[in-house]
Amino acid sequence: MRHLPVSELLSTALGEAEFMRHIPRHRRVYEAIRKAILNQQLPPGSKLPSTRDLARDLSLSRNTILTAFQQLLAEGYVIAQTGSGTFVANTPPDSQLASEHRSTEKRHAGAGTLSSRAKKPAEHILRFSERGIRLTSRPAGRDFEIQPFAPGMADFSIFPFKLWQRLQNRYWRDAHTELLDYGGAGGYLPLRCAVAKYLRVSRSVNLTVDQVLITSGTQQSLNLCAQLLADTGDTAWVEDPCYWGARSVFEACDLRLHSVIVDNEGLSPQAADLQTAPRLIYLTPSHQYPKGVVMSLARRRLMLDIAERKQAWILEDDYDSEFRYAGRPIASLQGLDPYERVVYLGTFSKMLYPGIKIGYMVVPIALQEGFKTALYDLQRPGQMMLQAALSDFMEEGYFGTHIRKLRLLYGQRRELLLKTMQNVLGSAARISSEESGLHLVLELPREIDDVALARTAMEYNMNVRALSTYYLGNSPTRGLVIGYAYVVPEKIIFYGRLLANIVKAKIKP
Amino acid sequence: MRHLPVSELLSTALGEAEFMRHIPRHRRVYEAIRKAILNQQLPPGSKLPSTRDLARDLSLSRNTILTAFQQLLAEGYVIAQTGSGTFVANTPPDSQLASEHRSTEKRHAGAGTLSSRAKKPAEHILRFSERGIRLTSRPAGRDFEIQPFAPGMADFSIFPFKLWQRLQNRYWRDAHTELLDYGGAGGYLPLRCAVAKYLRVSRSVNLTVDQVLITSGTQQSLNLCAQLLADTGDTAWVEDPCYWGARSVFEACDLRLHSVIVDNEGLSPQAADLQTAPRLIYLTPSHQYPKGVVMSLARRRLMLDIAERKQAWILEDDYDSEFRYAGRPIASLQGLDPYERVVYLGTFSKMLYPGIKIGYMVVPIALQEGFKTALYDLQRPGQMMLQAALSDFMEEGYFGTHIRKLRLLYGQRRELLLKTMQNVLGSAARISSEESGLHLVLELPREIDDVALARTAMEYNMNVRALSTYYLGNSPTRGLVIGYAYVVPEKIIFYGRLLANIVKAKIKP
Repeated sequence: MRHLPVSELLSTALGEAEFMRHIPRHRRVYEAIRKAILNQQLPPGSKLPSTRDLARDLSLSRNTILTAFQQLLAEGYVIAQTGSGTFVANTPPDSQLASEHRSTEKRHAGAGTLSSRAKKPAEHILRFSERGIRLTSRPAGRDFEIQPFAPGMADFSIFPFKLWQRLQNRYWRDAHTELLDYGGAGGYLPLRCAVAKYLRVSRSVNLTVDQVLITSGTQQSLNLCAQLLADTGDTAWVEDPCYWGARSVFEACDLRLHSVIVDNEGLSPQAADLQTAPRLIYLTPSHQYPKGVVMSLARRRLMLDIAERKQAWILEDDYDSEFRYAGRPIASLQGLDPYERVVYLGTFSKMLYPGIKIGYMVVPIALQEGFKTALYDLQRPGQMMLQAALSDFMEEGYFGTHIRKLRLLYGQRRELLLKTMQNVLGSAARISSEESGLHLVLELPREIDDVALARTAMEYNMNVRALSTYYLGNSPTRGLVIGYAYVVPEKIIFYGRLLANIVKAKIKP
Repeated sequence: MRHLPVSELLSTALGEAEFMRHIPRHRRVYEAIRKAILNQQLPPGSKLPSTRDLARDLSLSRNTILTAFQQLLAEGYVIAQTGSGTFVANTPPDSQLASEHRSTEKRHAGAGTLSSRAKKPAEHILRFSERGIRLTSRPAGRDFEIQPFAPGMADFSIFPFKLWQRLQNRYWRDAHTELLDYGGAGGYLPLRCAVAKYLRVSRSVNLTVDQVLITSGTQQSLNLCAQLLADTGDTAWVEDPCYWGARSVFEACDLRLHSVIVDNEGLSPQAADLQTAPRLIYLTPSHQYPKGVVMSLARRRLMLDIAERKQAWILEDDYDSEFRYAGRPIASLQGLDPYERVVYLGTFSKMLYPGIKIGYMVVPIALQEGFKTALYDLQRPGQMMLQAALSDFMEEGYFGTHIRKLRLLYGQRRELLLKTMQNVLGSAARISSEESGLHLVLELPREIDDVALARTAMEYNMNVRALSTYYLGNSPTRGLVIGYAYVVPEKIIFYGRLLANIVKAKIKP
């Protein structure tokens, strides 16, 4: 009779568990017993009825009960003693260890020196680390991507879906199992070759295929560079203004950010900057983000010279140099580098679609093996099926065609936005005239609060970004960063006028 | 006549550049001039011939020359002075800045305190950071994946290619442009729902859909946890032995690793361990990697208790719990957690294919918004097309079928390997009998050098891993970690016998 309460308990529990109807019976029995143990309704040491008795009491098959018991046994909820039956395990933590643990705790709390963590407010103790608080308190990116004119966004509605589907299906149809693997050697070789060829011809990058690594995008490339090329507390020079995504990654790796001003020739380090020797120098020489400046040759040489003298690494983020609407794209800084001090970064997110998450790095020869190892150990890029389709897309000439198509489209949209806004604004505000990229910069007088202006624009369903928010330093230029690449012409005209009028009203109230 | 040398120079350069035949003419002119400037064959300040003269001298159209000049102008190689012509720019770095830079350099070198970096050997100065040297000097993963019996590998040759292709094509055919985007809200919602349902039913995880984030795999999930939940120098408790991939990520984030021994109930913290308060506790409770132990209920409660008292976070890596060949998978630690101190991590790499690079995290409610922000800012998961196909795969029942198929297959292979090796070894060595996972552990006597044994096996084309290499602490258990999941039966028999004989010869020479 000793087992009756258990059977009753379980019978009730099984009856109550409406939501478990779709779950197998043995699982329900398991859950009911498990819950009773955790509730202490079945205290440690109590004996369970035999499977035969329990099966009878619950009107279930004995196999069902057996399966449940085996599971409980495997998880340590119960123990089986040969010949005497099944008992609830001694679940509470070993008493000796638990008490030692508590006394250690007290000793620490009583000591004179409280750790810095102990001084933080209780809420933080429960949540993110100090770094985590910094990283999560600035929701920079997420709500960026609705409405006109969010910067950095490309138009992927003209993406050649049918063609891409066909290229992908080649590999899926033939069941290339080797392409399901992580891919350990720095990426799918034909893609690395296609990228090398493209970079050599179109970007004057100086490289062999071995130096090309396929990553899951620029954020991942930057993270790898920060972890492999810098130590915690090392200084990274960043442009001021700077791409927020790079800044976030460096902060996440606990690098010290030192911002250097950007003038009309690109990064412009002053004598004072040279006092803080950089370990990394993050640059967007082809098209400074967000200002749009092209770095001059003199400045390129200066940066290479500084990198060599300071034993620093230049990270050249060549994020959208394909989109130059007058003349050819600007040659890469990497191609000028006699010291092998440049790591070149690129991405397919702007040329194909953002979510493709395929990027590439060109690393100096001396680093290529180490980078390959760490890429695999720390990140594992994968997506070899996608890499295979992409390599065909490049090799068969579709990539070139697609870029030309996008360049034409974006060039027209840029012109349209520029004219639409200039018609309203006249000479009241200067709009950057760099003929490249996916956004324009509208410069505003110092006294205009660009953040408030962006907020006003948001009320009219426009997602522009205040130029000052890209700055780390104390004297930000005011302005608006206006992405046009993904906005259709009718919207460019409508919203462009609206935005220009909002700006005009602010400048001359 | 002043321009003739330039024309000759370019004429020669253009003639020589055989490899440039496939490049447009204006580009060849651009390259030739650019090279001459960089070589100082055209020194700063020298005047270029007019485009008309140059066109005539080189027998090219004037437009070709104009295009080349515009490019050179845009890149700052030349400057145009209205009315007087085009000149090579003053390319050397500003002399004032350069000289200040040099004197700063000297001052630093002369100072009494040399930085730690200055003391490193020259080779290192040129290469990785100290952290980078640590991370790249241990090529743990890359050459893992050839031949039998690399641990952790799954069999993806039975992957349902046709079905998967069909599911993917649904979305590609209908040109879902919104699925080409990064996806800012923590992943594709239907996939997050499917994962939540699966984890609730199969893994007893306690969650709402909002807590599920889709990442690009466990490495990325771990990196995010380390960056958001710990600060540089914080302590992470890791299992000893431990999964090397987790160790690498924590090291890359400069956490201090504190290894805690694993006994037959899982992680077994001693009183001394409690002196070093952890900020993160990395656990594989369902199936300790690589030993295979299931963490007991008492130990689970102890770990939750420690996490709550120490204000630490438990990272529960539930990497292969689906593959349990007797009984049901073990319920998650997260489901027992009353304190919301567990971050639960999973991956589709083992269940579908490694390169899919889709994983998931279940984060406590208090952290979900911050994690979503940082996931987007720092990593951007993307691959929404793949996420959509995967959510259909799960919702339409294929996932369950596939797992059952794999479980059957792997269970048979496990049995076959176990029997094959036991037949040769008899009682000479113990093989772990945990009926789960993708590998077996063969335990060896203390005096056997397992690293040498693995090296010998490699000579016979077997890629087993020495158990001792998974340990951080001083008293590693010797043994071999033997992956069987992806090895076909004929190879299991052939290589299993071979390996057992190699081991036998070593134990009783």
